Amino acid sequence: MIRIGLCGMGYWGKNLFRTLSGNPSIQLTAVADAKAEVRERLATSHPSLKLHADAMDVIADPEIDAVVLATPVSFHYMQAKAALDRGKHVMVEKPMCTTSAEADDLVARADLYGLTLMADHTFLFHPAVLKLGELVRSGELGQISYFDSQRINLGLFQPDVNVLWDLAPHDLSIIDYLFGGQEPVHIDASGYCHVNPGFPDIAYLTFHYPNSMVAHLNLSWMSPVKVRRIAVGGSDKMVVWDDLNRDEPLKIYDSGITTHPRQDREIILPNYRIGSVSSPRLGGNEPLVDVVEHFRQVIAGEAAPRTDGRLGRRVLRTLERAQAALDVSLRNVEASRPDLSSNAAAA
Amino acid sequence: MIRIGLCGMGYWGKNLFRTLSGNPSIQLTAVADAKAEVRERLATSHPSLKLHADAMDVIADPEIDAVVLATPVSFHYMQAKAALDRGKHVMVEKPMCTTSAEADDLVARADLYGLTLMADHTFLFHPAVLKLGELVRSGELGQISYFDSQRINLGLFQPDVNVLWDLAPHDLSIIDYLFGGQEPVHIDASGYCHVNPGFPDIAYLTFHYPNSMVAHLNLSWMSPVKVRRIAVGGSDKMVVWDDLNRDEPLKIYDSGITTHPRQDREIILPNYRIGSVSSPRLGGNEPLVDVVEHFRQVIAGEAAPRTDGRLGRRVLRTLERAQAALDVSLRNVEASRPDLSSNAAAA
Amino acid sequence: MIRIGLCGMGYWGKNLFRTLSGNPSIQLTAVADAKAEVRERLATSHPSLKLHADAMDVIADPEIDAVVLATPVSFHYMQAKAALDRGKHVMVEKPMCTTSAEADDLVARADLYGLTLMADHTFLFHPAVLKLGELVRSGELGQISYFDSQRINLGLFQPDVNVLWDLAPHDLSIIDYLFGGQEPVHIDASGYCHVNPGFPDIAYLTFHYPNSMVAHLNLSWMSPVKVRRIAVGGSDKMVVWDDLNRDEPLKIYDSGITTHPRQDREIILPNYRIGSVSSPRLGGNEPLVDVVEHFRQVIAGEAAPRTDGRLGRRVLRTLERAQAALDVSLRNVEASRPDLSSNAAAA
Amino acid sequence: MIRIGLCGMGYWGKNLFRTLSGNPSIQLTAVADAKAEVRERLATSHPSLKLHADAMDVIADPEIDAVVLATPVSFHYMQAKAALDRGKHVMVEKPMCTTSAEADDLVARADLYGLTLMADHTFLFHPAVLKLGELVRSGELGQISYFDSQRINLGLFQPDVNVLWDLAPHDLSIIDYLFGGQEPVHIDASGYCHVNPGFPDIAYLTFHYPNSMVAHLNLSWMSPVKVRRIAVGGSDKMVVWDDLNRDEPLKIYDSGITTHPRQDREIILPNYRIGSVSSPRLGGNEPLVDVVEHFRQVIAGEAAPRTDGRLGRRVLRTLERAQAALDVSLRNVEASRPDLSSNAAAA
Repeated sequence: MIRIGLCGMGYWGKNLFRTLSGNPSIQLTAVADAKAEVRERLATSHPSLKLHADAMDVIADPEIDAVVLATPVSFHYMQAKAALDRGKHVMVEKPMCTTSAEADDLVARADLYGLTLMADHTFLFHPAVLKLGELVRSGELGQISYFDSQRINLGLFQPDVNVLWDLAPHDLSIIDYLFGGQEPVHIDASGYCHVNPGFPDIAYLTFHYPNSMVAHLNLSWMSPVKVRRIAVGGSDKMVVWDDLNRDEPLKIYDSGITTHPRQDREIILPNYRIGSVSSPRLGGNEPLVDVVEHFRQVIAGEAAPRTDGRLGRRVLRTLERAQAALDVSLRNVEASRPDLSSNAAAA
Repeated sequence: MIRIGLCGMGYWGKNLFRTLSGNPSIQLTAVADAKAEVRERLATSHPSLKLHADAMDVIADPEIDAVVLATPVSFHYMQAKAALDRGKHVMVEKPMCTTSAEADDLVARADLYGLTLMADHTFLFHPAVLKLGELVRSGELGQISYFDSQRINLGLFQPDVNVLWDLAPHDLSIIDYLFGGQEPVHIDASGYCHVNPGFPDIAYLTFHYPNSMVAHLNLSWMSPVKVRRIAVGGSDKMVVWDDLNRDEPLKIYDSGITTHPRQDREIILPNYRIGSVSSPRLGGNEPLVDVVEHFRQVIAGEAAPRTDGRLGRRVLRTLERAQAALDVSLRNVEASRPDLSSNAAAA
Repeated sequence: MIRIGLCGMGYWGKNLFRTLSGNPSIQLTAVADAKAEVRERLATSHPSLKLHADAMDVIADPEIDAVVLATPVSFHYMQAKAALDRGKHVMVEKPMCTTSAEADDLVARADLYGLTLMADHTFLFHPAVLKLGELVRSGELGQISYFDSQRINLGLFQPDVNVLWDLAPHDLSIIDYLFGGQEPVHIDASGYCHVNPGFPDIAYLTFHYPNSMVAHLNLSWMSPVKVRRIAVGGSDKMVVWDDLNRDEPLKIYDSGITTHPRQDREIILPNYRIGSVSSPRLGGNEPLVDVVEHFRQVIAGEAAPRTDGRLGRRVLRTLERAQAALDVSLRNVEASRPDLSSNAAAA
Repeated sequence: MIRIGLCGMGYWGKNLFRTLSGNPSIQLTAVADAKAEVRERLATSHPSLKLHADAMDVIADPEIDAVVLATPVSFHYMQAKAALDRGKHVMVEKPMCTTSAEADDLVARADLYGLTLMADHTFLFHPAVLKLGELVRSGELGQISYFDSQRINLGLFQPDVNVLWDLAPHDLSIIDYLFGGQEPVHIDASGYCHVNPGFPDIAYLTFHYPNSMVAHLNLSWMSPVKVRRIAVGGSDKMVVWDDLNRDEPLKIYDSGITTHPRQDREIILPNYRIGSVSSPRLGGNEPLVDVVEHFRQVIAGEAAPRTDGRLGRRVLRTLERAQAALDVSLRNVEASRPDLSSNAAAA
């Protein structure tokens, strides 16, 4: 029985609370939340829980083996470090921290202490992503040429992250999982800040990978229509995952392009093969149930980690590079606009 | 009765033939096509037509008032110039020619001679685009913040244009029409060449406009699923046009974002307004019927041109700049790849 | 503060438990369920609740003002009668009981005692049904000509009701609500028993109403595709409610048929008007929250009952007539089949 | 080279004209149409055709081997009989004639003379129907339990047929093809006449077949939404054909119900098997091209007839029985309505 403490009872924290409580091999012994009414409600419904206002009290509790951090992103590094230094295993909400330098430090400490450091990239436990992984790794899709994600909706604007840091971690963790931890050789980015200057609410990213795959992300908080759609194209088959399609979320197109280079012409005109479409039935648990059980198994030495600190660090590294590319584009656009202020001064 | 000659009886040429023949105020008197069997078939079914193997014979025919060019793109400039020099009005398939320098020359000649030069951007006669134009110009959508187009399908690869030149002219002409001929202040681009080196089959473009609008194009010949979807977002309403939705192609979302800057916080958290959705009934003719009738009316001085040579030129200018941006990205990606050949040499 | 007892903690009972507990003007004081483990779990999580194995102990509890019955259908009549006789208000899951004679008795007792008797037809609190009601009653749809419902899915077969009694109560209560309690003048029915002889798993019903409206129900437990779709057609507009469409569940078609009888021809050829489509935003609470609050308000004399015992009785009366019509069809089909057994006997 | 004459150049006649002209083994030599302008247009475009105002002139032409009748339904019998009596093979638009007695006579004459009599049930040459046939006959679906068709749209009202005779022939010919010419043992029907008294514009039909299959048709001219959807359910798999779904018209659900009767309970609770969905690619020609070529092959003795006069007769026989069942329901409904006139008289 592993004794776990949970820090943070916000939106995702509540889900973790329910899931940790429901795992029969886990004992959720302490919870921290800054809000008094949250603690009062828990005191009534779960009288045996230890309740704290300050996460550090959970982290320092000697009767706890592991902590789960569902606090605001800016606290992750400090809290995770403190927990590791006190010999606790740690699972951190995504993104794992705010910089890759912080991630380096957390990974090094976990290695040094021999502790489990896990980033909660829940999508890597989603049945559709697991199926995508099977299709990519088994070679059924052939040589992968592109990954195309549309992740758009109306808001929610968040006070501490822009649209890139809010939405891209999902896609970056999925790409990392599907393609064995590869990192892009080059990133192109552009975006726009409609609501807050310097704070993009729309971002378009293109990641170029060493294996010739190109990944494109269309991220937006400004769309009245919600879309969650990922397409993965290979030389043999192509797959589309529409996460909002209740009946047939994953469709496999037995369609592809074959090319026959010919000596006598400059350009290759490919042949198209258009075949049937199939939609496998996806079973499986609620992903978060498997995340929590996986954390327990990794701690117990029963499983190799699927979303360890290194994966969390790779995602952060790519986010930092994407942000840098986005900054370049934002500056270029700014510089290219007619300088209205100086005109006004001249007039 | 305007006498018109048609050059080229390929895929689009056949549609123009049918449409020109069906206009009661137009007399289609001559057709040129290089293929003998095409001319033979026409000789049987339409014995009164003058038939030529060489487009120049139509262009030089003194009994013709105007020519319609549906020949391969590389011939457009030469043929249009020859026709204008011989005093004919000209309608040219999109793209109007291959460079903006050629377009400059054609526009100058048409101006000099007082002749009509029209680029056949058929989409500007599509009922959905006309409705989009109404919605944008009437202010019903509010301040426009983005234009987002997905134009993807499996092929067809073409021997003389890459995916940018094949698909982007549609979106660029629509943007030009909706936003009064504005040209972008900055362009970001990326893409990939899966089939032919140096010849992109996937391209992602971001156009930044002076009025703070951002336009994004996701163009692909590599998708098994065909998508033709344009979203236009404004501060008051947002519109999505799905050209493959037979029943409700255009949906207007009475949803928006309102922002109330507050002194006491650094970041603006907008309010979301989610309202009803409506789908207006789109009437109207087949667009090409209106294109042909419009060409006739412009020649007859009965209408101001909607898709004149200047629009064709603006589209070309933006295509050239987009291609330049795409080339930069392709070179950057190339430079960033591990140099496998030199490794091989070293080993 | 009204004191309520709940009988039955099955699938729907659990929802009622959550909803009754969440209403601040209701005190849920006692719960009955036959299963020991259900009572044990409640004893831990809600130590102040009175728990009983037998529903009659709740019904007889003098400290309770009202009971909610979520027990199997065959118990409804006996339990509701006992509760009314003990002076309790009663809300009963649909269907209210098993025969209209039972319903007559319950309605008479509630009238006699001046107590509230309510059938829980939850759909009458669904935002889409409320909107349908507005559209029908305001005259916006014009003269209603048809109501067409498809309610099909794969199972669940239930041990005590056939597909008619399982699914039709939803539609019959909606029709009752939309059209002011009218009852059909004639019913046509057919169906089939694939799994259990004499126990239909597919049923097709046509109800003919005095106001010239025809209602058709296609009910099935044998469809791999789940459909929940109701269309209501009027002379001016038509509405389709697709309960599984997350984004636009209700669509109003501004389309209709106008007829101009002419002296000179035998048959009327109507004119079609095809207009725009709109999808109003539906707000509102979870329907069951409003059901429970409505029950409280009716008891407190603050609201007129929307789904009273008379509505429950009308639904039962129509179900009985539909079952009779279905029986006739099943017998006719049986009689028309080649008599295989006698053939066998002869051979 | 078979010489064919075509009678009728209405909507479907034009399609037949195009298709007959395009078949290289058929010589379309004569056309009849009552409208002078139709004949004038043909005289210009096809100067070698023999043109007649009266279909009988085509039928009597000794230089013709076969006639295709696309005239109004009420003329079919007389014209087909005349053609057979003159030794011509005949293909007749659906429905083949107006009564099964007429059909008996045509079948008898074709048999007597050894001529081909074919009813043009084009759907039996549609790739989706052919695929359905494969699935049913190969046993892949298991034991078929139901056929459910929705065929609804807004009009078109026709002066000489009600909604049953307009739309049901499609479904009845498909059922005949799928299930080897079986005829129903019993028919239930209901409907409504909103526009013309005694002339149903909505009809609901249930056909009970000897093999325990039940077929249901929901036919309407009163729906603003067009639906063309057929579901076929078997014990092993189920199929849905949505003729308006451009991308995936046919979906095969690997889902089913298995039943394990148990001694110890009265009712069978089946097990559900929910599997994947697949959508085969449908190839094939335009169906009418294959209809015309099939007619030629049957005449030439190269193929056995797929839609012969017997099939046309079975469809008519079932239509007559369905109309009789519908009449019974219409009369029952009429009789059940409160007699408003006599009330008025009494008052």
